Amino acid sequence: MKVLFAAPARLWDAWSPALRNACSEMELCREGDPAGFDALIYAPGYPEDGTVLDFTPFTRARLVQSLWAGVERIVTNPTLTQPLCRMVDPGLAQGMVDYCAGWAMRAHLGMDRYAQDGIWRNHLTPPLARERGVTVLGMGELGRAVASALTGLGFRVTGWSQSGRPVPGIEALAGAALPEALRRAEVLICLLPDTPETRNLLDADRLALLPQGATVINAGRGTLIDERALLAALDQGRPGHAVLDVFRSEPLPPDHPFWAHPGVTVTPHVAAETRPVSAAPVVAENLRRAMRDEPLLHLVDRTRGY
Amino acid sequence: MKVLFAAPARLWDAWSPALRNACSEMELCREGDPAGFDALIYAPGYPEDGTVLDFTPFTRARLVQSLWAGVERIVTNPTLTQPLCRMVDPGLAQGMVDYCAGWAMRAHLGMDRYAQDGIWRNHLTPPLARERGVTVLGMGELGRAVASALTGLGFRVTGWSQSGRPVPGIEALAGAALPEALRRAEVLICLLPDTPETRNLLDADRLALLPQGATVINAGRGTLIDERALLAALDQGRPGHAVLDVFRSEPLPPDHPFWAHPGVTVTPHVAAETRPVSAAPVVAENLRRAMRDEPLLHLVDRTRGY
Repeated sequence: MKVLFAAPARLWDAWSPALRNACSEMELCREGDPAGFDALIYAPGYPEDGTVLDFTPFTRARLVQSLWAGVERIVTNPTLTQPLCRMVDPGLAQGMVDYCAGWAMRAHLGMDRYAQDGIWRNHLTPPLARERGVTVLGMGELGRAVASALTGLGFRVTGWSQSGRPVPGIEALAGAALPEALRRAEVLICLLPDTPETRNLLDADRLALLPQGATVINAGRGTLIDERALLAALDQGRPGHAVLDVFRSEPLPPDHPFWAHPGVTVTPHVAAETRPVSAAPVVAENLRRAMRDEPLLHLVDRTRGY
Repeated sequence: MKVLFAAPARLWDAWSPALRNACSEMELCREGDPAGFDALIYAPGYPEDGTVLDFTPFTRARLVQSLWAGVERIVTNPTLTQPLCRMVDPGLAQGMVDYCAGWAMRAHLGMDRYAQDGIWRNHLTPPLARERGVTVLGMGELGRAVASALTGLGFRVTGWSQSGRPVPGIEALAGAALPEALRRAEVLICLLPDTPETRNLLDADRLALLPQGATVINAGRGTLIDERALLAALDQGRPGHAVLDVFRSEPLPPDHPFWAHPGVTVTPHVAAETRPVSAAPVVAENLRRAMRDEPLLHLVDRTRGY
């Protein structure tokens, strides 16, 4: 089968070995006669990244397989008449655990206090993980995985969700107990979805409940945080630091004040990134199904849009 | 009972609340008539930190309790005739796990690649922990605790020790397999003691076996690493980075090249620091034993020196 890698060139080095490894019977190409391809591997991206905008010439294609979970940038394309499948990456939860545990440890250990200036500051010993309160907002699949990993590292973990449904080994708080969840949060990890209830949930009043010097890590959705309130709160040291991976507008504009604020670390939406090694087998499975005319995995319902 | 806090002033804020909390019957003082104290809490430190050098006037003291595990700076003091006890802190292994797991995660996630310069570098997604090889040198109590925590985070962990004795859940390599252990080490965590066999174990030939861009984390003993060879190896990118907490001379002199090298992060011997919250109960227990003339915990054998 002949497959077009219809994704930005910068992705080729990371993805092509994993894809070829997962599907040795595939001839993976970067260009060629559109009518000759059995399928397209597509990365719906920012406008400057798009490589295929007109799907009309791909007359033989049985599958357009997205590498990302989000397909909102392609699903409305009127030329796309081929079956479109989105990515459900089994590595996503592990990636989120890595990101949240890593940045939580960086905050916990106060790594940034060790300036490389020749001064031996050995009185700055951090407390132990078991003395450190960490709150996870959002107890879905990702929140539970992160809370469990942090518990394994010894932290005193509180999980908060609207329902407060119990999670083994985690102290769970529900809806109205949000203030208590925030007061415990020396590290606050935000993994809430974007819904009308969560928009601007972290406003000035709620940020003021955090302990002095707390660290906020947002790897869920940018709409959770009132940006202006966060910047004002950081100026007061409560929280002391914010590690932000998601934003209302992405890429975060170069002139956004988050980039310049010393209390903010911006990461470019990498926590929930699709990983080649775990996603390539999903692509391979769908390519085989397409060739055999079997039901496709994660087929997008074009009327619902996902 | 009346106890002198015979330790540097900078330690008072961190230690006095934990000590008073652990031993409410103690009157903890920062000064007073030497002959009036029942015991001394002592922090054997660098010369500039010493507060008591002549123990002769402490005629009533039944105990000199060190806050640190290492007592080499006090054990040879000829005026010290009182019983001397060293610290065995039950929080030490957890502190070592925190340090090693935290810096390993920082290396794993490539946190330092995210310059806060307005450029959205979202193609730098790190691999998952399960794709990352981590080797722990030294499989004593600390090495096993660290290897176990890293396994819990999903890393592919190899443990190396002279004997190669099996550790549940960890792939263990022995003595002669050191080259293989190093070749697997995208992150190398060093927790070896200082013995004739480990001195300069990491020399130029062995450092050259590490993967390109590897990170070396040394939280064991400074004598493990040939410093000149490490600096030369860092210039070749193999390893790409070194996080060093222990040194041949401590405090690390301000003009030591480690401070200035961009590939080195110096931390001031904090990984195995005694923690007030876990160590204060040990102090309290020994104070009570001293008052009751019961056998003391961790009494130093003055002929052996520890």
